[in-house]
Amino acid sequence: MELLKGACVVGQSGGPTSVINASVAGVVHAAMQSELITQVLGALNGISGILEDRLIDFGKEDAEELELLRYTPSSVLGSCRYKLADPEEDETDYQRILEIFRKYNVRYFFYNGGNDSMDTCHKISSYLSKVGYECRVIGIPKTIDNDLMGTDHCPGYGSAAKFIATVCAELRQDSQVYTTPTVNIVEIMGRHAGWLAGAASLASVVGQGPDLIYLPERDFCMDAFLQDVDTVLHTQGFCVVAVSEGIHDAQGKFINEVGVAAADGFGHVQLGGLGVYLAEEVKKRLGCKARGIELSLLQRCAAHIASQTDIDEAYDAGCAAVERAIGGASGVMIGFERSMQEGSYQCNSITVDLETVANAEKKVPLSWINACGNQVTQAFIDYALPLIQGESGQKRAASLPRYSKLRKVPPEVVST
Amino acid sequence: MELLKGACVVGQSGGPTSVINASVAGVVHAAMQSELITQVLGALNGISGILEDRLIDFGKEDAEELELLRYTPSSVLGSCRYKLADPEEDETDYQRILEIFRKYNVRYFFYNGGNDSMDTCHKISSYLSKVGYECRVIGIPKTIDNDLMGTDHCPGYGSAAKFIATVCAELRQDSQVYTTPTVNIVEIMGRHAGWLAGAASLASVVGQGPDLIYLPERDFCMDAFLQDVDTVLHTQGFCVVAVSEGIHDAQGKFINEVGVAAADGFGHVQLGGLGVYLAEEVKKRLGCKARGIELSLLQRCAAHIASQTDIDEAYDAGCAAVERAIGGASGVMIGFERSMQEGSYQCNSITVDLETVANAEKKVPLSWINACGNQVTQAFIDYALPLIQGESGQKRAASLPRYSKLRKVPPEVVST
Repeated sequence: MELLKGACVVGQSGGPTSVINASVAGVVHAAMQSELITQVLGALNGISGILEDRLIDFGKEDAEELELLRYTPSSVLGSCRYKLADPEEDETDYQRILEIFRKYNVRYFFYNGGNDSMDTCHKISSYLSKVGYECRVIGIPKTIDNDLMGTDHCPGYGSAAKFIATVCAELRQDSQVYTTPTVNIVEIMGRHAGWLAGAASLASVVGQGPDLIYLPERDFCMDAFLQDVDTVLHTQGFCVVAVSEGIHDAQGKFINEVGVAAADGFGHVQLGGLGVYLAEEVKKRLGCKARGIELSLLQRCAAHIASQTDIDEAYDAGCAAVERAIGGASGVMIGFERSMQEGSYQCNSITVDLETVANAEKKVPLSWINACGNQVTQAFIDYALPLIQGESGQKRAASLPRYSKLRKVPPEVVST
Repeated sequence: MELLKGACVVGQSGGPTSVINASVAGVVHAAMQSELITQVLGALNGISGILEDRLIDFGKEDAEELELLRYTPSSVLGSCRYKLADPEEDETDYQRILEIFRKYNVRYFFYNGGNDSMDTCHKISSYLSKVGYECRVIGIPKTIDNDLMGTDHCPGYGSAAKFIATVCAELRQDSQVYTTPTVNIVEIMGRHAGWLAGAASLASVVGQGPDLIYLPERDFCMDAFLQDVDTVLHTQGFCVVAVSEGIHDAQGKFINEVGVAAADGFGHVQLGGLGVYLAEEVKKRLGCKARGIELSLLQRCAAHIASQTDIDEAYDAGCAAVERAIGGASGVMIGFERSMQEGSYQCNSITVDLETVANAEKKVPLSWINACGNQVTQAFIDYALPLIQGESGQKRAASLPRYSKLRKVPPEVVST
């Protein structure tokens, strides 16, 4: 294996999570240990920061602040949703990336994101190979949606799942205080895959799971839904529902959009509104008290209740990316492989071809959804429960979270 | 002082909180220590449970489950919103209460709730005095709204405040990841008093407070609001706003209702919708990305991030109620008095006449709101910060909250 010496750049892309900064912390830690990596740089706002030469030097940051990155939610480097052109059609961006990489002698590029980001990673990797610029490109997975192919699960999911399961447990407590029949409908993120809404079921481990769960993997039927709610109300007096924002009818039309269309006079609801819409239907058709509760951005940034397992795995994914790159890997994403040793969960890092991951989506297996399509099965719980274990070691000041604050000093250009 | 021997009943009323069960745990613990209290009973669904003879015997519960009550959100006995008639006009309910109290020889009545519940307490206390039935009646405060008179603060507020400050800190992190200007508007409970929305400011202690905070104590002006947001956006590129659901215009009309009226085609939004409405105005008038985030029921039940100070004070309020009653007090509510000893916060229990508390509302002092009416001052932070201190000792199973499950066995009638 050839020893490749030069700077590394890490960037973040797509929607933030509670643990995406833990992956950056892992990259920075492992890169600083390596004698081959001469400078550890960060790209502000992902690929946009590379194109605009907005980089920072992690070597200028305090060790304590870097350590705090593990417990700091959201993308500390900033993110972007910039989509690179097909290099066959327009090479401009790629030429600019190459220019910046040459300027700082970047030989390692780590990109932390979801499937769009893996597409970016894949394109850059292919382009650099094509033009013969030696640079190892590794993707680091990140998404609360848990929808990346080629990996058992994704960093970010466990923490979002833990928040969702915990607040669903709390909302179930809250739903049964009055004798008046009450329906609480919790709207959870997930346009195309139901991993997040399914995570609500984890609360059933402590007897607090939702009565009904609807995922986008199955067509949603309003009449069946109302019948389901009515049945639960009659046996129990209250009903807690978890629902993916992405549920759709048999024609593939988002129920969400039906709601928004109905709300047209109100203005266009940006995201969500589904829970409130379903609650309105319940009130109208079943004549009981109902409320829609949208977990909104909280589910992707509630680091105060992050899963320590998730934090550790996100950090390890960052370290693994550096180690694999130094070992010669490129054009791959770090993935996770699960093994159960003597009944206990173990997670090992693997590499996955970026091509497998780019722009694909992994859905919840249909066999993990019950026959009626209104609950997940034990197989889902067995899968997701290990991912939410461990209380976060987040540092606090005055009982409030203490986040990392970076100085963000631009790097010096070191002549090579 | 006369020694009064007999059973006690504790009931819960009004909206639940994260720590209302801690107060019940305090009552049960203290009552079980007393030789004067012969049976420790609970009323299911507050005063309704007394009227319908739905009581439980805490003597039949496991000690471990009673201990878990401290960390179990929502009203474990169930709640009600039953308003007693004026006894001058209709004595029916009061006669029934007396009948039940006689049946179980109830000589101590503890009622845990907000200002409506203190009104109930006051009426029962007055009636029992009038008819010469000796029974000591004590109110135990509970409300996330923190709006009870005669007490420095209310159990339930600290935990709600901690959740609000924490998620506002997290949302501030989330608001600054993209270079596109973004406005996040957090809608917080509080119809008439701004204690909860003001609590968002506590995040400023760790540099994560909202840029703008609007409370119902000041009239809300849409144009001034949009100007405020615009100014923040221009200097900072993003803006986080905390807003009380109860903000209103100079004519006293809830901005909420204006939003609902505009949304009429959509159906009648039960509560909230204000954040989404304000976000729509921001989008329309300032042309930037904006999102309304309603904390909804989470703020009253998020026991996973309860303040241990709040839990302890709620428990102590329950104990104090029993001790004061045994000492001869009646017709009063337990309140809190704050003292600062060598700069450190101390909280002592006091008694307050129920008449002072019943149906009155304590608002945020106008001097704690800045001149522009878009922020709270340091005085607010100094007041609220001690109330959110300490991490909850909540017990977990598989990293999920483990709540108390009561057996709820009806009491035997003991002949006296």
